[in-house]
Amino acid sequence: MDNRPIGVFDSGLGGLTAVSEIRRILPSENIIYFGDTSRVPYGGRSRETLLKYARQDVRFLRSFDIKAIVVACGTVSTNALTELRQENDLPILGVVDPACARAVKVSKGGRIGLIATAASVRSGAYERQILALKPDAAVLSKPCPLFVPLVENGRYHRGDVVVETVAREYLAPLKDAGVDTLILGCTHYPLLTDVIADVMGSGVALINTGGEAAWELKRTLTASGALAQERQGGEAFYASDISGDFSAIAREFLHEDIPHVHSVEIERY
Amino acid sequence: MDNRPIGVFDSGLGGLTAVSEIRRILPSENIIYFGDTSRVPYGGRSRETLLKYARQDVRFLRSFDIKAIVVACGTVSTNALTELRQENDLPILGVVDPACARAVKVSKGGRIGLIATAASVRSGAYERQILALKPDAAVLSKPCPLFVPLVENGRYHRGDVVVETVAREYLAPLKDAGVDTLILGCTHYPLLTDVIADVMGSGVALINTGGEAAWELKRTLTASGALAQERQGGEAFYASDISGDFSAIAREFLHEDIPHVHSVEIERY
Repeated sequence: MDNRPIGVFDSGLGGLTAVSEIRRILPSENIIYFGDTSRVPYGGRSRETLLKYARQDVRFLRSFDIKAIVVACGTVSTNALTELRQENDLPILGVVDPACARAVKVSKGGRIGLIATAASVRSGAYERQILALKPDAAVLSKPCPLFVPLVENGRYHRGDVVVETVAREYLAPLKDAGVDTLILGCTHYPLLTDVIADVMGSGVALINTGGEAAWELKRTLTASGALAQERQGGEAFYASDISGDFSAIAREFLHEDIPHVHSVEIERY
Repeated sequence: MDNRPIGVFDSGLGGLTAVSEIRRILPSENIIYFGDTSRVPYGGRSRETLLKYARQDVRFLRSFDIKAIVVACGTVSTNALTELRQENDLPILGVVDPACARAVKVSKGGRIGLIATAASVRSGAYERQILALKPDAAVLSKPCPLFVPLVENGRYHRGDVVVETVAREYLAPLKDAGVDTLILGCTHYPLLTDVIADVMGSGVALINTGGEAAWELKRTLTASGALAQERQGGEAFYASDISGDFSAIAREFLHEDIPHVHSVEIERY
């Protein structure tokens, strides 16, 4: 038993969709969340800059006595996870491996699609992991750079011609290629599930990376006897910038209000 | 005569539209450009964070022997210009005052619209300046948070249903209110001129803030005898992050290739 909190971070508030999954799957765990809202979005930045930001995010979370870290950011998971694991002596879980394992498991025909940020797609991390698990899989990736700003501006609902047009364009090559499974490789994308499902059709399985990471976290903590005892579930939220519409955006991702957000000067870490 | 360069900065590459105007209006001037591409966009961040970033941007430009600074970023111009001027002993020009002066001059009915980032609109800087110049003006402002990501993803052309739908929605209240002049209060927006003009109609004058700032710069340098001598026009470009599509985006704004971009670790300033 280990009641120390789990650190979770993302470039911004999208990682709150992962917090929502961790709450559901591991309701007794204590969580410390950090969103790097002063530097969001990460998805278009260079690997060098991503590594610098990710190291600072981890150093901040490690200023608390935490037992594990969940990298809820797809872009950091694909570009900096190896270095973060080498440099830190606690379990660090990314979103790539659990999502790939799930995709390989549910895919009937081995035709797996990935949508993610430009930096995630460029890294090739999902393809490598899928092919390691299933060498005869066909993997097709598509960067979707407008999905994050659209979601952050509340444009993820069915019937919105803007997001539906963008989704049809981004997803067309994946649909044409006949993928049977699609990894939603960014924590913002679960909010687009309806729009994406409408385009791809009911025969395509959608993989929520935050949800798969939460299940992987449960397996890891269970295996090492590090689950928290029942009835705790305390949470604390930190962000590097708190602007006017912070609460409204947070509510979209977490499905409830955040009571209090603490401000962090992340460049100091 | 003063051949020292002019420093120009923006949150990202949008300020290159202002460089393009300075080149046209002041072809002999030497320019040092900094784009804070590791932290772009600024438009949704808090005033506190904007002030921190703007101070670092200015400190970096002042590591060169420059004669003036043009704040090509609408969000910094509206949120941090007073502080930057108080703290620095060289001319610092923003985009607000020249654009407002021009708008008041060309507006026939005194009904002036502003489109800008959320932080710029929230600041109220344009309204205050317009009303100071023309107390009976009617000013209507509208934040357009999706315009920057749309432009950065190349979606600013006539006939693109995505940008045209977003533009119609954002501009509807301005059109309904019968504005006769519209300030494009962000350096990305000149690329949207066709789309915006189509929605607003030919009777509405559009004000390019970068262009007005370049004219103001010419007046300032002329008045103080600080124009550069003929036939120089050297330029150097710096950015805090150089990712894969940097050159392509830069070309859209500057109408030509940037020969070389130097990398800057902006947090050190």
